[in-house]
Amino acid sequence: MPFEIPAIVQDRVSNRARETMKKIEHFVETECIPADEIYEAQISKEPSLRWKTYPPIMDDLKKKARAQGLWNLFLSKTHYSQGAGFTNLEYGLMAEILGRSHTASESMNCSAPDTGNMEVLAKYGDDAQKKQWLEPLLDGKIRSAFLMTERFAASSDAKNINMHMRTEGNELVLNGTKWWSSGACDPRCAVYIVMCKSELNTSSDPFKQQSVVLVPAGTPGVTVLRPLSVFGYDDAPHGHAEVRFENVRVPRSNLVLGEGRGFEIIQGRLGPGRIHHCMRSIGAAERGLDYMIARVNDPNRRTFGKLISEHGTIRSWIAESRIAIDSCRLLVLNAADKIDRHDAKAALKEIAMAKIVVPRTVCDVLDKAIQAHGAGGVCQDFPLARMYAGIRTLRIADGPDEVHLAQMGRNENGRAAEIIKKHEKQEARRAELFRQYKIDGKSHL
Amino acid sequence: MPFEIPAIVQDRVSNRARETMKKIEHFVETECIPADEIYEAQISKEPSLRWKTYPPIMDDLKKKARAQGLWNLFLSKTHYSQGAGFTNLEYGLMAEILGRSHTASESMNCSAPDTGNMEVLAKYGDDAQKKQWLEPLLDGKIRSAFLMTERFAASSDAKNINMHMRTEGNELVLNGTKWWSSGACDPRCAVYIVMCKSELNTSSDPFKQQSVVLVPAGTPGVTVLRPLSVFGYDDAPHGHAEVRFENVRVPRSNLVLGEGRGFEIIQGRLGPGRIHHCMRSIGAAERGLDYMIARVNDPNRRTFGKLISEHGTIRSWIAESRIAIDSCRLLVLNAADKIDRHDAKAALKEIAMAKIVVPRTVCDVLDKAIQAHGAGGVCQDFPLARMYAGIRTLRIADGPDEVHLAQMGRNENGRAAEIIKKHEKQEARRAELFRQYKIDGKSHL
Amino acid sequence: MPFEIPAIVQDRVSNRARETMKKIEHFVETECIPADEIYEAQISKEPSLRWKTYPPIMDDLKKKARAQGLWNLFLSKTHYSQGAGFTNLEYGLMAEILGRSHTASESMNCSAPDTGNMEVLAKYGDDAQKKQWLEPLLDGKIRSAFLMTERFAASSDAKNINMHMRTEGNELVLNGTKWWSSGACDPRCAVYIVMCKSELNTSSDPFKQQSVVLVPAGTPGVTVLRPLSVFGYDDAPHGHAEVRFENVRVPRSNLVLGEGRGFEIIQGRLGPGRIHHCMRSIGAAERGLDYMIARVNDPNRRTFGKLISEHGTIRSWIAESRIAIDSCRLLVLNAADKIDRHDAKAALKEIAMAKIVVPRTVCDVLDKAIQAHGAGGVCQDFPLARMYAGIRTLRIADGPDEVHLAQMGRNENGRAAEIIKKHEKQEARRAELFRQYKIDGKSHL
Amino acid sequence: MPFEIPAIVQDRVSNRARETMKKIEHFVETECIPADEIYEAQISKEPSLRWKTYPPIMDDLKKKARAQGLWNLFLSKTHYSQGAGFTNLEYGLMAEILGRSHTASESMNCSAPDTGNMEVLAKYGDDAQKKQWLEPLLDGKIRSAFLMTERFAASSDAKNINMHMRTEGNELVLNGTKWWSSGACDPRCAVYIVMCKSELNTSSDPFKQQSVVLVPAGTPGVTVLRPLSVFGYDDAPHGHAEVRFENVRVPRSNLVLGEGRGFEIIQGRLGPGRIHHCMRSIGAAERGLDYMIARVNDPNRRTFGKLISEHGTIRSWIAESRIAIDSCRLLVLNAADKIDRHDAKAALKEIAMAKIVVPRTVCDVLDKAIQAHGAGGVCQDFPLARMYAGIRTLRIADGPDEVHLAQMGRNENGRAAEIIKKHEKQEARRAELFRQYKIDGKSHL
Repeated sequence: MPFEIPAIVQDRVSNRARETMKKIEHFVETECIPADEIYEAQISKEPSLRWKTYPPIMDDLKKKARAQGLWNLFLSKTHYSQGAGFTNLEYGLMAEILGRSHTASESMNCSAPDTGNMEVLAKYGDDAQKKQWLEPLLDGKIRSAFLMTERFAASSDAKNINMHMRTEGNELVLNGTKWWSSGACDPRCAVYIVMCKSELNTSSDPFKQQSVVLVPAGTPGVTVLRPLSVFGYDDAPHGHAEVRFENVRVPRSNLVLGEGRGFEIIQGRLGPGRIHHCMRSIGAAERGLDYMIARVNDPNRRTFGKLISEHGTIRSWIAESRIAIDSCRLLVLNAADKIDRHDAKAALKEIAMAKIVVPRTVCDVLDKAIQAHGAGGVCQDFPLARMYAGIRTLRIADGPDEVHLAQMGRNENGRAAEIIKKHEKQEARRAELFRQYKIDGKSHL
Repeated sequence: MPFEIPAIVQDRVSNRARETMKKIEHFVETECIPADEIYEAQISKEPSLRWKTYPPIMDDLKKKARAQGLWNLFLSKTHYSQGAGFTNLEYGLMAEILGRSHTASESMNCSAPDTGNMEVLAKYGDDAQKKQWLEPLLDGKIRSAFLMTERFAASSDAKNINMHMRTEGNELVLNGTKWWSSGACDPRCAVYIVMCKSELNTSSDPFKQQSVVLVPAGTPGVTVLRPLSVFGYDDAPHGHAEVRFENVRVPRSNLVLGEGRGFEIIQGRLGPGRIHHCMRSIGAAERGLDYMIARVNDPNRRTFGKLISEHGTIRSWIAESRIAIDSCRLLVLNAADKIDRHDAKAALKEIAMAKIVVPRTVCDVLDKAIQAHGAGGVCQDFPLARMYAGIRTLRIADGPDEVHLAQMGRNENGRAAEIIKKHEKQEARRAELFRQYKIDGKSHL
Repeated sequence: MPFEIPAIVQDRVSNRARETMKKIEHFVETECIPADEIYEAQISKEPSLRWKTYPPIMDDLKKKARAQGLWNLFLSKTHYSQGAGFTNLEYGLMAEILGRSHTASESMNCSAPDTGNMEVLAKYGDDAQKKQWLEPLLDGKIRSAFLMTERFAASSDAKNINMHMRTEGNELVLNGTKWWSSGACDPRCAVYIVMCKSELNTSSDPFKQQSVVLVPAGTPGVTVLRPLSVFGYDDAPHGHAEVRFENVRVPRSNLVLGEGRGFEIIQGRLGPGRIHHCMRSIGAAERGLDYMIARVNDPNRRTFGKLISEHGTIRSWIAESRIAIDSCRLLVLNAADKIDRHDAKAALKEIAMAKIVVPRTVCDVLDKAIQAHGAGGVCQDFPLARMYAGIRTLRIADGPDEVHLAQMGRNENGRAAEIIKKHEKQEARRAELFRQYKIDGKSHL
Repeated sequence: MPFEIPAIVQDRVSNRARETMKKIEHFVETECIPADEIYEAQISKEPSLRWKTYPPIMDDLKKKARAQGLWNLFLSKTHYSQGAGFTNLEYGLMAEILGRSHTASESMNCSAPDTGNMEVLAKYGDDAQKKQWLEPLLDGKIRSAFLMTERFAASSDAKNINMHMRTEGNELVLNGTKWWSSGACDPRCAVYIVMCKSELNTSSDPFKQQSVVLVPAGTPGVTVLRPLSVFGYDDAPHGHAEVRFENVRVPRSNLVLGEGRGFEIIQGRLGPGRIHHCMRSIGAAERGLDYMIARVNDPNRRTFGKLISEHGTIRSWIAESRIAIDSCRLLVLNAADKIDRHDAKAALKEIAMAKIVVPRTVCDVLDKAIQAHGAGGVCQDFPLARMYAGIRTLRIADGPDEVHLAQMGRNENGRAAEIIKKHEKQEARRAELFRQYKIDGKSHL
């Protein structure tokens, strides 16, 4: 199936984007998806080597993709000059295709958390920081990690983080522990972008106490304690690390933007990143649906004399999955478009909706795909269980769904005074009409 | 709240449409919503008068609306010349506003089934038919009914209908019974558009056996047997009738388009009508959400020391309702836009999705709004239970959800061969890569 | 189908109860269900007569039922001497059968709110009150209403009620308004059991400020303002009234149990009543499932060449409905059994579960049954929409589901300290085992 | 919390069972749960050793448990003489407690698939088979596997299996491949119970073509191809194997019960096994709920100034989880009780309900528990994700939910003729009553 752009955004997608999408789709379907299992097989299963080797096929994919101009597609033209010049909406559509394959995003230098980290450096980094870290990241030479979450705090609220930063002369001294530092286990990870609580402003504005610091991997005092698993997957070689900082010292110049400006930085980082995650998830759902359809039409798997696809329940799963996916896509594209027209802050509500709805919906689609595969669905023979596990974490990452729902509920509830006033006016007009038409306003009920 | 157009369709809405939407919104909020209860109170509760009187306030509303140019907004500019010149997408946004009030659609001559009937006459009627029926309908002088559904057949599949039509000389003779003939009880209903099974082609193409015939109300042999209720509502003065035809004779010239072309006609009729129903339902959901928010912020209804809106469960209902409504809107607008770019047939999938998703989602939102009102929610003091009942029927009208899901599932499943072929190619490429990288393709699993 | 008692309660049902159940089932299936439509038809549709006549068929049914000993079955043997001597569990099974028909409960003098009111009088009334009100109620000569809910208060919390009661000499003076006073519109309703806020203890214990007063219908100052509708149903002749009290005076001897003891009374009233409502709802669900099965096997309603029952989606609806119903039954019977073994207070949790789960589950079953009937399902031709509406109110009556969920959540959360202590002990033992088996407790993760 | 037996089964649980349950609970809470992580840590992570070592702590647990008489509790007294003498209902309650810990079932020699295999041998094995395999299994000296599922067949319908068995003289020759052979990777697994398709009866009764054969592990021609993973978990040392049979020869005396009697054997095997799985799942859900409650009351995890447990959404999760668990328990116990009163065949419907409802419900509870733990929930720090993955497979094992739903739907739909007849009788009686009361049966609608 050639990739289909929804009617409603036809006018918003340039010809160049359409051409690029076709190239991406071809590359993903013919190179990346077939490469996924090779990539997996090239990761050592020996505990001592597991986090030290890197699958050679990835470098080959990267070379091929870059040669076709499929590189750094994510930096939106509205807000950055270093990228490929697409809008968030256009890149959203591309990200969906990337989401079909485990290796696709990285092959085009579009994988998290590097994308968000490059955005941070491009937007907030000074020239030296850009030269040292942004350039090799854009070049795909190194990788990076973003260290925010903490094990013993409700760190989805950044005000709760405990990683301590103090200033000693020209140095910053960091102490604390982070976890779920995705990518920090990767042998090529060269820099950590660390969210700290600094001593500045502790008695005043709680939104000005966070600072973002660049810590080179291998800095003395940093210990990668262990990789965390997602359901049973360790996601090697990328991984999700628990990392300890004991009196880790870096120069003050490693501060991004300035002390106390951490909140500002992560707010700017989150919007497009959420769009990317959502659209990749949708791509995963499309792939799950493809697998489901292929499976239920397997002529060797007839039950009760029929192809599985002839059973009404399965038919309705297929239809519901199609609806779920197409709904999600519109929701995300609308958010991306609002970022393009304004910025991420203006699109807060739309981004939050996508963040809440897409992962849970895609998990449902994948769960149905798993179920349609029977025992095959939960094991390594299909990418379904793994995709499920990965996308399940998106209901937690950057704050659990419930926090976003509560916030959105509070904002929407902010309309109360206005609504009540409107109702009162309508009530007054209603009373007027009852009088005009000579009806007893009470008795008619 | 000023009506907000989603980012993604900003470019698709003309300034004239925006201006009209503002006028519609003002009229609905200040005239129609306050009028809803008066309209209700003006309907007699005496059984002998209930279906004979008509609420005078409606004619006043119609005059006011027409004076502001708010009239016949529904006929899309792409496909009709008689209308107000808006696209399906633009009118969709307007229909949402109309959906907030029971009296709004009719006040602007935009209410079902007249809208669909006018589309049929405009598209398929001959000049005489247009003069006799379309003109007074467009003028709001008469109303009409569409008679399709039958009590003792699975009539969501039009091939199953039994209303018999035979030709005798220059006359058509109709025999049979229809039910759920919405509007046929209305004292101003002047014409029935009746779907019949003619004797033509009975042995051949099952899609060429249906004919559409215009039957003036009051034609001898027509008996309105009884009004049907929806949950407990009879929806007077409009109503839903069971109507018997006993040797009803009309001239052959009352055939629309020609014998055996009924399928063609209803196919063309359904698309935009479903968009209208969906968008009006979304307007009802918005009103339900308004009521919910107003209620849970009522300072006299504290429980356990808090405003009801401060309870987390209610907060999440408000957020989920906002998400549900905004998702539905995008789904419908995307379908409307596809109709505008192509036609209803091209947008079959998108229309079906909207038809399936919107009513069930809006019912959920309204059910939550009811629940938030406690006992008030189910009774006549709020329009919530009534809106619920009305929209509940949309899950059945024009075929139950399950029929549409089955059809959509079958269509989507049609991709099977293509997917399987793609998977085979990927499998071949995978095998090639395993060889190239010297990995045993079996052992790695 | 002969009524089937779940395996798990086989030993808990006496032979006498089994015999009675058989008689009830026969009476309900052959007398009550056929009578339901006659009962409905005998209620006048003229507004002026609607609340003044009473369907003659009911008295005939009552005579027949009583002649067979099917009378006052609800008063449980454990707690009352006046009843038929069954346990709550046994009567629960009987109530399920009653729930299949609109007329069944009343025909055996087992209908709400009389049942709860008789329990109150039997348990808390003095001899004079019993003679005046309990005897004719037990005799089926009069009916009664329970006036608790108020329109402008969150009255699911009885502490919020506003109906004011003051003492003047030997008289009580009542002022205020109640609504949803079910049965108060009935021409045979002779007494209101009114929950008031008395002036006693207003500064101290908020649970000792409520009093229950007996007010004879027709007492000067009482005005039945209007009947409330449930969805569109007015439930005549029973009805749900809004009732105003203006300086209504009754003798002090009309107080039940004593001033300030209202809370105590309603607490005792609610348990078994909730069991009855739940079990009747289950009976309604069984009837809904019967209708669904009959409909989808109608040979005249084939779609796509198959009986509707041959479609997989419908098959799964039937199965899910069976599961839902059987699950609900076990939940309610377990609660009933706990009341029998102890009392309603001990069974608080079990009753609350049933109260929360059963109505929502039965609404789901009935909604599916409606959907399976297409347009027939929402109208007067089947009892489905009406049963849905009635049971929908049970999610609100006696407090909305959400209040019960919050309370149950709080109680269950009360286990926190105990669980945390258990986890700490297990953690200590785990550390011990790690030492014993010489494993580094940290590194293994 | 002392283990609480539902009211409804109080009379069905002997004092001896209660005493045993107390001992089991104490052993599980103080020995098994703390041992779970040690057991895990004792499994080698080196690929070459992973399936060859066995955690020493298990043997210690087994010794301790057996010393307390906690051994072979599963063989029900009604149907077997070798067991501990409890009913299925009593053992069900015990199995729930076992389900709280990964190591508990095996420590008391009550773990699948050995339990089902021992039932097969006890019920259908001849004396020699019992001596060779049942005795050491009952003694906990060896383990066993049950080989049924096949990769390339819809093997949930046993008629579809392809493993070929032919007779050559006194030998049986097996060819084919099985997968999801749980336990076949275990170094102590000594015997495979293999479901084959024999050449007998191939042209006649399709239910008489299956045979069950005992194949000692290590028989020439048997190759364990690979372990399958469940989500990311390999469940070592137990594991789920793909196993190839190439001309595997065993004596004819290794046939169980006789050629062509395989269907009969698995039918008898499944009932109690499903009860065990369900009850263990319920125990897992209880443990998940415990974790959830502990987590949301952690004073270090306040959000928005409140304990997480003070948020309404979480409160409702806790309540809904309690309801879900208690409902499931009643459903399973009712099925167990019916097996006790009759046999597994008589309890087909009740067992199927439990099989369908419990795994999906427990997955929901565990998913909420995971969500309440944030990122901690999906990783190795809590047993939640692992329990989720394990129980997720129960929606597939022994046939996917949808197959059971379809079957149950078909059975329930079998009541159609009876219902239709009942409705016709009621319709006749209704017509009679309309005449008797002189009402026009049509006009009243």
